[in-house]
Amino acid sequence: MFQTAGNTFGTRFKVTTFGESHGAALGAVIDGVPPNIAINTDYIQSQVDKRKPNTTAGGTARSESDKVEIVSGVFEGMSTGAPIALLIRNENQRSADYAQLKDTFRPGHADYTFTKKYGTRDYRGGGRSSGRETVARVAAGAIAKLVLCSLSPFARITAYTKSICGVNITKVDLSQIECNPFRLPDEEVIPAVEQVIESARAKGDSVGGIVECIVKGLPAGVGDPVFNKLNAVLAHAIFSIGAVKGLEFGAGFDVASMTGSKNNDAMRSSGNNVEFLSNNAGGTLGGISTGEDIVFTVAIKPVPSISIEQQTIKQEGNIYKDTTLSVHGRHDVCLCPRVVSVVEAMTAIALCDLML
Amino acid sequence: MFQTAGNTFGTRFKVTTFGESHGAALGAVIDGVPPNIAINTDYIQSQVDKRKPNTTAGGTARSESDKVEIVSGVFEGMSTGAPIALLIRNENQRSADYAQLKDTFRPGHADYTFTKKYGTRDYRGGGRSSGRETVARVAAGAIAKLVLCSLSPFARITAYTKSICGVNITKVDLSQIECNPFRLPDEEVIPAVEQVIESARAKGDSVGGIVECIVKGLPAGVGDPVFNKLNAVLAHAIFSIGAVKGLEFGAGFDVASMTGSKNNDAMRSSGNNVEFLSNNAGGTLGGISTGEDIVFTVAIKPVPSISIEQQTIKQEGNIYKDTTLSVHGRHDVCLCPRVVSVVEAMTAIALCDLML
Amino acid sequence: MFQTAGNTFGTRFKVTTFGESHGAALGAVIDGVPPNIAINTDYIQSQVDKRKPNTTAGGTARSESDKVEIVSGVFEGMSTGAPIALLIRNENQRSADYAQLKDTFRPGHADYTFTKKYGTRDYRGGGRSSGRETVARVAAGAIAKLVLCSLSPFARITAYTKSICGVNITKVDLSQIECNPFRLPDEEVIPAVEQVIESARAKGDSVGGIVECIVKGLPAGVGDPVFNKLNAVLAHAIFSIGAVKGLEFGAGFDVASMTGSKNNDAMRSSGNNVEFLSNNAGGTLGGISTGEDIVFTVAIKPVPSISIEQQTIKQEGNIYKDTTLSVHGRHDVCLCPRVVSVVEAMTAIALCDLML
Amino acid sequence: MFQTAGNTFGTRFKVTTFGESHGAALGAVIDGVPPNIAINTDYIQSQVDKRKPNTTAGGTARSESDKVEIVSGVFEGMSTGAPIALLIRNENQRSADYAQLKDTFRPGHADYTFTKKYGTRDYRGGGRSSGRETVARVAAGAIAKLVLCSLSPFARITAYTKSICGVNITKVDLSQIECNPFRLPDEEVIPAVEQVIESARAKGDSVGGIVECIVKGLPAGVGDPVFNKLNAVLAHAIFSIGAVKGLEFGAGFDVASMTGSKNNDAMRSSGNNVEFLSNNAGGTLGGISTGEDIVFTVAIKPVPSISIEQQTIKQEGNIYKDTTLSVHGRHDVCLCPRVVSVVEAMTAIALCDLML
Repeated sequence: MFQTAGNTFGTRFKVTTFGESHGAALGAVIDGVPPNIAINTDYIQSQVDKRKPNTTAGGTARSESDKVEIVSGVFEGMSTGAPIALLIRNENQRSADYAQLKDTFRPGHADYTFTKKYGTRDYRGGGRSSGRETVARVAAGAIAKLVLCSLSPFARITAYTKSICGVNITKVDLSQIECNPFRLPDEEVIPAVEQVIESARAKGDSVGGIVECIVKGLPAGVGDPVFNKLNAVLAHAIFSIGAVKGLEFGAGFDVASMTGSKNNDAMRSSGNNVEFLSNNAGGTLGGISTGEDIVFTVAIKPVPSISIEQQTIKQEGNIYKDTTLSVHGRHDVCLCPRVVSVVEAMTAIALCDLML
Repeated sequence: MFQTAGNTFGTRFKVTTFGESHGAALGAVIDGVPPNIAINTDYIQSQVDKRKPNTTAGGTARSESDKVEIVSGVFEGMSTGAPIALLIRNENQRSADYAQLKDTFRPGHADYTFTKKYGTRDYRGGGRSSGRETVARVAAGAIAKLVLCSLSPFARITAYTKSICGVNITKVDLSQIECNPFRLPDEEVIPAVEQVIESARAKGDSVGGIVECIVKGLPAGVGDPVFNKLNAVLAHAIFSIGAVKGLEFGAGFDVASMTGSKNNDAMRSSGNNVEFLSNNAGGTLGGISTGEDIVFTVAIKPVPSISIEQQTIKQEGNIYKDTTLSVHGRHDVCLCPRVVSVVEAMTAIALCDLML
Repeated sequence: MFQTAGNTFGTRFKVTTFGESHGAALGAVIDGVPPNIAINTDYIQSQVDKRKPNTTAGGTARSESDKVEIVSGVFEGMSTGAPIALLIRNENQRSADYAQLKDTFRPGHADYTFTKKYGTRDYRGGGRSSGRETVARVAAGAIAKLVLCSLSPFARITAYTKSICGVNITKVDLSQIECNPFRLPDEEVIPAVEQVIESARAKGDSVGGIVECIVKGLPAGVGDPVFNKLNAVLAHAIFSIGAVKGLEFGAGFDVASMTGSKNNDAMRSSGNNVEFLSNNAGGTLGGISTGEDIVFTVAIKPVPSISIEQQTIKQEGNIYKDTTLSVHGRHDVCLCPRVVSVVEAMTAIALCDLML
Repeated sequence: MFQTAGNTFGTRFKVTTFGESHGAALGAVIDGVPPNIAINTDYIQSQVDKRKPNTTAGGTARSESDKVEIVSGVFEGMSTGAPIALLIRNENQRSADYAQLKDTFRPGHADYTFTKKYGTRDYRGGGRSSGRETVARVAAGAIAKLVLCSLSPFARITAYTKSICGVNITKVDLSQIECNPFRLPDEEVIPAVEQVIESARAKGDSVGGIVECIVKGLPAGVGDPVFNKLNAVLAHAIFSIGAVKGLEFGAGFDVASMTGSKNNDAMRSSGNNVEFLSNNAGGTLGGISTGEDIVFTVAIKPVPSISIEQQTIKQEGNIYKDTTLSVHGRHDVCLCPRVVSVVEAMTAIALCDLML
């Protein structure tokens, strides 16, 4: 019931993803890529590789090569204007792991809601609702970054882990992000983060966190004044990531206890340009970019798959029965390091859609 | 540059708004309304009237009758399936008030960004970027509520003010909301709220706050698993409201410091139905409604128009010059009571789009 | 059943129309108009006036001033980038004329199909299905022509009547089109055309015809290679006009009996440009404009409202009963002269959508 | 310039195709397929096989197995509601054949226009503009037929060759269509058709023709009254096929010389149903299906690739030079038998989009 064809994001830079956790392959078709942009396969692969789980950082042990095949739209290394299709084969499916879950609904997952919606369910690892779907987004996001680089050469999207289970960063050193498996911009909190993750893993539990994203170098004038405000389109993109429960731009929820005189960002002339004396707005006014950094913060829920026993239900025909469930298998303890890749990808895709 | 035709929300229940703060009229065209739904003009007008400013509650003194004309799509009191166009004439424009703002950019408003985007600006009260545009959304939202009522008779959308400038409600009594001008569900905090608003008004300042929205009675199965998750579409809708800086569903940012065992909502069988033992998820799993209440919280920034002097710039030809600005005129001190109407409207519109 | 929100044409230059034959008003919202284009009200009115019926030319006697109000999106004579809403009030409704048709389905009209689709019907003059809806298209088309003129200064859309009830033009003299009420580019056939129209009118009958449209000065490169071919988007636009039963580009149906060597348009170099030695293609190759004239021909069916008695049905509850019907009232004998305006408008709208 | 993301057809049943004539693969993603529809792989393959060239019928000698892989969206033989991705590998590319065409524009092809649009071109067999792209449409159309069968069990789409190079059928016997390589519903004209095709082949020339399509069993009420008229959406779909130059519904261009009394289809009551005494309308009134057969006729141009020498141009840097060209290689003489498959596919896709 109430079905929409909701597997495409964007209207001018359109990304359509397909594939399931344990199907033959996942992939994306990207329509709207301008011609004559160099499509660097190694770059795309490197972006996809960053999304891979890292056991140290609380990642799953599912091992996928995630090799990206460019099926179309690229000729002699350059985009042609035709849609670019990307394909990533699943290799390490273990569908048998999921046979026990065929009729049991995992708490915190879409198992129950998917079944209510479609009257059917691919129970192998969440099927279409699996986080594995995001591998296609990251691959498409890599294309989006290349396009963005061509549209706005100084724009640079950087996301990082800001907090894990209450352990917050104390500084932002972007050069650190790719130096640790947690993608933290602050090496000093690594030990504390390791501890909360290991502690959760030992208990068979999982932890939540916060991811932050900064877009530098975006020119003023991106976004629309009414329904397609830059923040609205980004919000659509970010909340389409499964684990996201909150989103703030700039001062975010702090504005609720601020006065206008405090919250307004004063402006001053700076040569031919305009300078903002603060950035509580997070880089947009009236839904249009100001030229300041776009800054937003994303709340990530704990991985719902935990081996601690949980109360839940199973379906027997049309009847629900109470049961308990311990989810074993190859699950992350904390999603943040991997969500960083997805946040960057969706940001790039949303910006391309607004800028083309 | 980077222009999109961004004045329509939705793909199956499409709301297109038009009009400027000081133009001839504002309005909306609603396409996708099923036939044979009773369109009660009084109900639409009453919804629009609730959005009107209330001076006690920190509202502006601009006085508009906001009379809604149904131009099309209704025959003998019933929808016909044809688009419903609604028209609301502006009556109390005082364009002259804005002549001084012709070249000066008000901090916290879209004046600067609009000019950067379009190379031109209707400087009369923000033009298309004015909060006045939301009168059309509220009128369209009233239609959406009527449609929703026909699609899902038990669904009921209720928003209210949760916090104003740090004064938080201590309970939620929905019956109180329309009994006070702040639309608070807790009469006990009214004196404290009055005090922070009066204090801000006396200083020529403004205040922010938080609005919460609850959707009761929505069936399980609404929303799509990937890009059109229920939360993603609602986020798009809510962040398209100008003053919004943050959005949380269910436990929201608290999930960042929670474990999976704490955050997961356990389920149990309840006759032929399913009962969730908590609602940290805020009513969705994997982007699809669970049948529990949809709950979300929205951060509202302080009104940017304040009479306290602020540092800003004015444009002289292609050059920016420093200046200061005190914004006088008819401005709200706190937007929350009015945003409540807009949040409900956008929620109804988004739900209709997902459910048709 | 099977309802779509089908009152918008375009994705980047979006025209949404609303209104019924005998409702309060008709209108259009045009979203995607670039800023800083001069919006000449007189020009828009003159375009709308050309669509008015002319009794000599077989037109109806319904008398409407068709005064266009620009409600939004224009400030100081220039577009602002905000949506332009246009409103045209109905003045000369005679709903009473239609009371007799409340339950009777007029042959050749949408009365029966509309009722099957929606389960209801605005029986006053066809409601939303009336040809009167096209007044909003012509007004929107005037905006589109202004935008097109800004995008492609040499582009010029010209439609004319090519044939009426078997009387065909023998030459194309564009300067003649607006000199006769039939909009014929050949003054020599006027007497013959007058005769077939008067003959039909005398019998209470109506006649069909052919309209041709030429777009000169369109640059090469407009249109997309796959689903949004220039001809495909134009075909969508043209077949959305109620009376259209056929459409040909260039050599059209003649290609069916041609060989490739005859049909292919040879090319030759002409300075820095390319010259085609013929234009059987009608100005497109692979769905993309060649730079030659876009030429297409449209079959227009006879007006279905005739006073000659026809066999039809009326609805009594859920039962259909046989009856006969003579449609009296204010009907055109031949639509061609008025459809010329609508064809031009839809062509302009489609081209703007492809070129923005 | 003027680029759109034009590789998706539909809004609720969305088909996105990708791939080039000589790339790695072609394919389609179909979004909006309802869950729980049996997806018969053999049926899909059989539909794709019908599109293959047949040498007798004037087909090319390019030999592709056109094996369809279902990549996603199907679980245990049933659709899941997730997007269905289909992949068809290219096997018989001979890119070297096209090296000579790198700078030369083939008359009647998109070579010149594609280059003008994108500033680049995949010269291998037309790249994205190749007729080979339609293999993905036919595969997607097979899915659409399965969906249509579930939505409207009695609906049946049948296309056939009506005329080849002036040789017209004299009767319509649907049972004959798949019994001859020309897909003619009249076995008596086969010898004459063979003769015109052989004659053209012998000269290195090609021929055009006409394809007709009939949709039986479609209920009344499909299609929208304004821009998404059933004929308008079908016209968009059909003119998106490369070789199409004309389209008529029902009486088509004949209406131009008819009177209303002749053209109107009278109705009479037939039990609880309505019967039309003729079908000049071709099955729609006001853009909505009447319940009668949908009938339309499509003009197909001759294959532009011919070995007869043609005058054309080649590009040398920014300069065009005159040249001549004989296109050798593996080309069809007449497209009609293969276009029959594509017409059916696009019809099924368009109907699904209108009916979901």
